[in-house]
Amino acid sequence: MSSATGRAEARITIADVARQAGVSVPTVSKVLNGRGDVAPDTRDLVSGVIASTGYRPRRRQREQRLDAMLVELVITDLASAYALEVLAGAEDGASRAGAGLVVNAAHDHDGGDRSWLGALRARRPSGVVLVINRFGGGSAEDVASLGAPVVLLDPAGSSDPSLPTVGATNFAGGVTATEHLLSLGHRRIATITGVPFLLCSQERLEGYRAAMARAGVPTDETLVEQGDFTAVGGQRAATALLDRHDPPTAIFAGSDLMASGVYQEARRRGLRVPEDLSVVGFDDVSMCQYMSPPLTTVRQPLGEMAAESVRMVLEEVRARRDGVAPRPRTDSAAPHLQLATRLVLRESTAPPRSA
Amino acid sequence: MSSATGRAEARITIADVARQAGVSVPTVSKVLNGRGDVAPDTRDLVSGVIASTGYRPRRRQREQRLDAMLVELVITDLASAYALEVLAGAEDGASRAGAGLVVNAAHDHDGGDRSWLGALRARRPSGVVLVINRFGGGSAEDVASLGAPVVLLDPAGSSDPSLPTVGATNFAGGVTATEHLLSLGHRRIATITGVPFLLCSQERLEGYRAAMARAGVPTDETLVEQGDFTAVGGQRAATALLDRHDPPTAIFAGSDLMASGVYQEARRRGLRVPEDLSVVGFDDVSMCQYMSPPLTTVRQPLGEMAAESVRMVLEEVRARRDGVAPRPRTDSAAPHLQLATRLVLRESTAPPRSA
Repeated sequence: MSSATGRAEARITIADVARQAGVSVPTVSKVLNGRGDVAPDTRDLVSGVIASTGYRPRRRQREQRLDAMLVELVITDLASAYALEVLAGAEDGASRAGAGLVVNAAHDHDGGDRSWLGALRARRPSGVVLVINRFGGGSAEDVASLGAPVVLLDPAGSSDPSLPTVGATNFAGGVTATEHLLSLGHRRIATITGVPFLLCSQERLEGYRAAMARAGVPTDETLVEQGDFTAVGGQRAATALLDRHDPPTAIFAGSDLMASGVYQEARRRGLRVPEDLSVVGFDDVSMCQYMSPPLTTVRQPLGEMAAESVRMVLEEVRARRDGVAPRPRTDSAAPHLQLATRLVLRESTAPPRSA
Repeated sequence: MSSATGRAEARITIADVARQAGVSVPTVSKVLNGRGDVAPDTRDLVSGVIASTGYRPRRRQREQRLDAMLVELVITDLASAYALEVLAGAEDGASRAGAGLVVNAAHDHDGGDRSWLGALRARRPSGVVLVINRFGGGSAEDVASLGAPVVLLDPAGSSDPSLPTVGATNFAGGVTATEHLLSLGHRRIATITGVPFLLCSQERLEGYRAAMARAGVPTDETLVEQGDFTAVGGQRAATALLDRHDPPTAIFAGSDLMASGVYQEARRRGLRVPEDLSVVGFDDVSMCQYMSPPLTTVRQPLGEMAAESVRMVLEEVRARRDGVAPRPRTDSAAPHLQLATRLVLRESTAPPRSA
């Protein structure tokens, strides 16, 4: 979806890459095909030249057939309920379109955490959906060098604005969660934030602040505790909040996993949810319904977001295949979708004791 | 890994399939490539002939390269913690070998629940790992018709013995869970079983019975409640058990999800885990550590099982590529691995009140 690689393709040949890297054409070919019989230093050198020149190998036309098309999903951490929702949605989106979904965890086996990039380069994917929370500028360039359409799912916030993104209405979700607690009569409402440099964390926190201000409740910034999207982080934040001489009667946790940490700390102190403490989460991963009590949370439609990301990638693949010229657009005109969040009422909230 | 398809390949051509189905060669080709412009009845007819003749399309040699190899994972239900463990392990196994993992949910979109089979046929995978609980004889034949190596993960128990399988020591796991509760002093120990026709359910139940018998505790078959691996099923079974005039002091649930249902029912009655009721699960999905209290459970190494399945498939792909003749073996000599289960102690068990 970046036109830069399209232009580069016409100019740069595999011979140019070989010359610039000071290696033979067969060596470049081996690197492109992910072969193991290339020295690591040579591979790094050639990969660097490929990235800097924007060289893209030609594909045979038959590989562009939609019916055997592959979309690559790259995700930071596969071992999370979040990843599960994303995967299920992406697989559904791909299989409905007759495409295959290749799954890549951006883990650090033996070649740094970019080893997925080499694998993608070898497979020459039709398109890529990236779910990488710590997605930085360097990675964006690497991915663009693949020459395939790319969509960022749940973007960290700092990515190249020319790349299309699919996210959720995190601000509105923060408002909804907080307004629900306010409507039950809570006033001392605390919030536990996610990883602070992520856009979604900031938006959820701003939603909380906006709802409190709108209700005329003076903002008490000491009721904002920083978390990190983990259960341990949620428990640590809950400890700080419940140790206060004036503890909150309700906690809005910026993720379900952090809410489970709040549950642990409440149980450790003999506090019952929701009788003694109301808790609201964010995400609505499948675990919420199995928690005791089942967790009231803000549903982020991760599955739909993933399916929509795959759909956008495939649409671009079709447009390129059919020779449809990319619509002329400025960098900022790449689509940036936000799907709606909504409150899912379960059993973890109740009026405060004093009300 | 079945030699039948290898023999058939030499005899059957695409023209034979077309003649036998009474359609044109291009129509057979469309079906093989998963194209949408074939009438459903025609597709079913052609697919049936392909399956019954054992016809396998030729692949170009270059598609056999290991460095761009794809392993297809087919799983009944992607939306479960079980699936997440399997996926993460399979992805790890594939990426370590430099192969890509394509994920398929065996869901029922628009073409019956075998639509994944058409997708696989179109992509001509290097190998297939099947995780299909209701895997029947018909499906086994369909999968064999793809001509690619196949491994069954966590087999239902009724599959073709010539197909390699990877499972867990379910019987030993049932023994371990029950012996743990016995060692705490429990005697009235109930169990909630999984889907009854699955091999893993039967083995876990037999492990429970064996441990009770070994401890000299008379078997009370009314303490065996049938579940279905869901949280709702677990709660329903717990209701029956806790409604008794002589309720059990401990429950061994055949899955973590069913254990979460037991938690719900205990909470509804004001019973505390583990003070009033001990609970042990099975699987050790990631949710267990986030439950309140964290669940003591039997760890089934699903991730390692999945990685091992991928490894076995790739080994067979390499053997075929390198022209290594399949080792002569009888049907029953296909490998059937069982990886070890082990007890993971957390906080959901304690001595009974009366002890």
